[in-house]
Amino acid sequence: MTTTKSMNVRGEKLALEEWGNLIESLHDEKTDTALFNIDDKDDREYDAIFLGGGAGGRFGSAYLRAMGGRQLIIERWPFLGGSCPHNACVPHHVFSDCAAELMLQRTFGGTLWFPPMEGVVTSIREVVDLFRRGRTGPHAMMNYQSKEQLDLEYILNAPGRIVDPHTVDVAGRRFTAKNLVLGLGARPQALDIPGSGLKGVYSNVSLVETLDYEPSDTVVVIGGSKTAVEYGAFFSATGRRTILVVRSECLKLIPDAEIRGYVLDRMKEQGVEIWEGSEALRIEDDGEGRVQAVVVRTPDGEKRIETDFVFTALGEIPNSEMPAQALGVEVGPRNEIIVNSRLQTSVPNVYAIGDLIGAPMEMFKARKSGMYAARNIMGFEAHYEPKDFPDFLHTHYEVSWLGLSEAEARVRHRNVVIIKMPPDNPNGLNAALPASDRTMLYAMAKPHMSGYQKLVIDGDSRRVLGAHHVGYGAKDAFQYLNVLVKQGLTVDDLGEMDELFLNPTHFIQLSRLRSGRKHLVDL
Amino acid sequence: MTTTKSMNVRGEKLALEEWGNLIESLHDEKTDTALFNIDDKDDREYDAIFLGGGAGGRFGSAYLRAMGGRQLIIERWPFLGGSCPHNACVPHHVFSDCAAELMLQRTFGGTLWFPPMEGVVTSIREVVDLFRRGRTGPHAMMNYQSKEQLDLEYILNAPGRIVDPHTVDVAGRRFTAKNLVLGLGARPQALDIPGSGLKGVYSNVSLVETLDYEPSDTVVVIGGSKTAVEYGAFFSATGRRTILVVRSECLKLIPDAEIRGYVLDRMKEQGVEIWEGSEALRIEDDGEGRVQAVVVRTPDGEKRIETDFVFTALGEIPNSEMPAQALGVEVGPRNEIIVNSRLQTSVPNVYAIGDLIGAPMEMFKARKSGMYAARNIMGFEAHYEPKDFPDFLHTHYEVSWLGLSEAEARVRHRNVVIIKMPPDNPNGLNAALPASDRTMLYAMAKPHMSGYQKLVIDGDSRRVLGAHHVGYGAKDAFQYLNVLVKQGLTVDDLGEMDELFLNPTHFIQLSRLRSGRKHLVDL
Repeated sequence: MTTTKSMNVRGEKLALEEWGNLIESLHDEKTDTALFNIDDKDDREYDAIFLGGGAGGRFGSAYLRAMGGRQLIIERWPFLGGSCPHNACVPHHVFSDCAAELMLQRTFGGTLWFPPMEGVVTSIREVVDLFRRGRTGPHAMMNYQSKEQLDLEYILNAPGRIVDPHTVDVAGRRFTAKNLVLGLGARPQALDIPGSGLKGVYSNVSLVETLDYEPSDTVVVIGGSKTAVEYGAFFSATGRRTILVVRSECLKLIPDAEIRGYVLDRMKEQGVEIWEGSEALRIEDDGEGRVQAVVVRTPDGEKRIETDFVFTALGEIPNSEMPAQALGVEVGPRNEIIVNSRLQTSVPNVYAIGDLIGAPMEMFKARKSGMYAARNIMGFEAHYEPKDFPDFLHTHYEVSWLGLSEAEARVRHRNVVIIKMPPDNPNGLNAALPASDRTMLYAMAKPHMSGYQKLVIDGDSRRVLGAHHVGYGAKDAFQYLNVLVKQGLTVDDLGEMDELFLNPTHFIQLSRLRSGRKHLVDL
Repeated sequence: MTTTKSMNVRGEKLALEEWGNLIESLHDEKTDTALFNIDDKDDREYDAIFLGGGAGGRFGSAYLRAMGGRQLIIERWPFLGGSCPHNACVPHHVFSDCAAELMLQRTFGGTLWFPPMEGVVTSIREVVDLFRRGRTGPHAMMNYQSKEQLDLEYILNAPGRIVDPHTVDVAGRRFTAKNLVLGLGARPQALDIPGSGLKGVYSNVSLVETLDYEPSDTVVVIGGSKTAVEYGAFFSATGRRTILVVRSECLKLIPDAEIRGYVLDRMKEQGVEIWEGSEALRIEDDGEGRVQAVVVRTPDGEKRIETDFVFTALGEIPNSEMPAQALGVEVGPRNEIIVNSRLQTSVPNVYAIGDLIGAPMEMFKARKSGMYAARNIMGFEAHYEPKDFPDFLHTHYEVSWLGLSEAEARVRHRNVVIIKMPPDNPNGLNAALPASDRTMLYAMAKPHMSGYQKLVIDGDSRRVLGAHHVGYGAKDAFQYLNVLVKQGLTVDDLGEMDELFLNPTHFIQLSRLRSGRKHLVDL
């Protein structure tokens, strides 16, 4: 495909609303008009062309530009920001917000101002439509900010074709640069069983792009990690029977066993069926090219589930084929482009960033790898390897963690002290603490649903080794807490902090209750 | 009043549920049976008697006990934890959660799964009743944790009478200690105008203790600071006309002018009427001892508001009368007991902590002042003065802040750089960012409601001077971010952190977009 039509937006200062209208018209009409935002007055050679304007390309460009360099983003979509605001993290958060809302509404249905929800199935399609209408807003912000505030150069709505490590053709023009930065992202791994091409089989990408009917009352989710659970919790919250078909164990990535147990128990309590050790064998056609049923091998034998809606979440495959073919960059076993800690590929002057270089396929890594590539390109040697980062996922809840699990800590340290809420007690989780924002009604009426949290401490050094939280409102805190933990945060430091009560993480005040002791003990 | 009946709970290991039942029976029946949890096997003299088992007394006791000392709490209520879980921060959070929920439900009423809410007035009384039933849970946890986990000694459901700095009489027994720690808290300042004693005039305390009818469709709130706004936002969210009668300016305590403007605009958008420069003159009797109307002097003349429900939030008055009379401790102009930075009063061996020593009447100060009193009592000189702490309040939103406002920063620094979201742009706040948990539906469909945030930076040193956030899910983070800011956090440090996207505070990624620049500029 060669894009030939073009529009020069350089001289115009489009407002957010105007950007929104332009993006929608280009996206909806699938026109191939390329948008050029090139600074013709700058006659310097580009320091880098960023192929792909997702998180990595945009942040890498911003950083390189901030350092005084010249950059060009080439992006096939009519907006910057990549898959996140279009079909990944933003819709995921929309669905997770709906799951949390619906769980609350169902739990209190028929009381207070909540309508009875027994047997009510709510629309999936309306939420997808809401997101589809709403996503242009963040898209517009990315384009606006990148042009008016960050002073970036970019060409949108046009795929680039790599000619060599310094040359890219796009929309009938040729651009050269000292370096090429590949930020082409990843795509959902496709399900490869009979019937996986039928209408009614979705990934997170195709769901928001193509859903055009209301799924019936049963959903099959294939996968058991972050994306599978995040979407599965939402489908379940809509009132549909939801079965997670998980090859091994669900949410293995949650490091702490008690936390994982709490998370899974709450999912099951909401009605999510988790079929571990199971595998989808085939999807049956209804005779008109649509899904009619899924056949699953389970530890109890084969089962057939009638449904018209299958959601697959099998991980992501880096889009490395095109650059591998064009440039011969080295590619790893999972289709990822191999880079060193300077983000350099096997081909001189070619860098790769973001999901394209493999795990962890997280936003911070995409953005920071772009930033580090920019530093190296601008002559400042800088090494980046993501490690010791905090992590999170959504069920109907937010689940956040950092550092070591209790079991991991016990392997490495002889004197591990645990502070948790609720504590071990004869009434178990039926304890009206923890409580904080968004869990107050649970804390008052359904205590066991009000969350669970744990701090893992080395009793000898008094240092915090790990922190784990299920509830709401702690995810943001884990970003900053993680920095403090890496600095060597102790239980005594925590005890000296100023809590904003009722704080989602009760770590500060719980630590204070114990920190007077020379010899720490559990709480 | 002398309590004579008593029950010894020392030998029994009551579970949470048993504690709950016991507390309810004592509280509801208003029996004067004192609960004794005294370690008769410990023949040491008490290092301290804590008079009052609220946040300060309980944390001070826990810390002193953890240091190896012996303590005794004497508390008039049948539970530890004080006013917070009984009628202050916990119900406040319940009401604020309801306000946020109801705003969401009204905004999306009639769409998705939300019922139409136009004209619907929801019950205040049912939420009060829910809280009243639920509050025993946290009470039970405090008693359980304090006895079984923290090994504290306490006497509950019995007021103590101070004999001298070493002696307190309670429930017919006399106890002596090396020191006395006063933690008697504060009470709502009473409204002092004609009619303020009528039925239908409430404070946060009397509301949850005595509300026994459903307020009609108009609410008058007298006050314009944290408590007034937190409860007023809830009353408004129930669908009632809600008028805040504010003597000077509403929410003056929010330091940043733009943030304050956003907060007030969103309250007004929800229908809250804010009458600044106004004063309630008298409350009219309906002839049967109930409120019928409030007469208010406003900048536009006197107005009469018909209502049967008035909520007063005029601040808190320390309960210093009894100790002042019994001991002669020095008391300040706002009824607060004067202490030095070691928490010592003017009387040797008598300490005072918590709300009793005046502003800031915040949970962290109550607890930390207890902890520091314990250190001093145990022979470790320790000085405590709350300063540079983060702060927050609720409207329908969470509002969090730390450090300097933009205006404060511009007075002290010549080169202030602002990073905010949404940024200044021709479409103003109608921008679909920020977005994160609990604001996703707004971000998609009502962008201007999705929050507002600002980072204030010294462009020369690159240090963060202040942070400000309106939205949800950032309050917890401000606890830890505040520590980092006090350490000297820079925009470059922020850019190196690992965000958990979509993070409520977009500070990390926004900083990264600018941190490549030698000379910082606004974003």
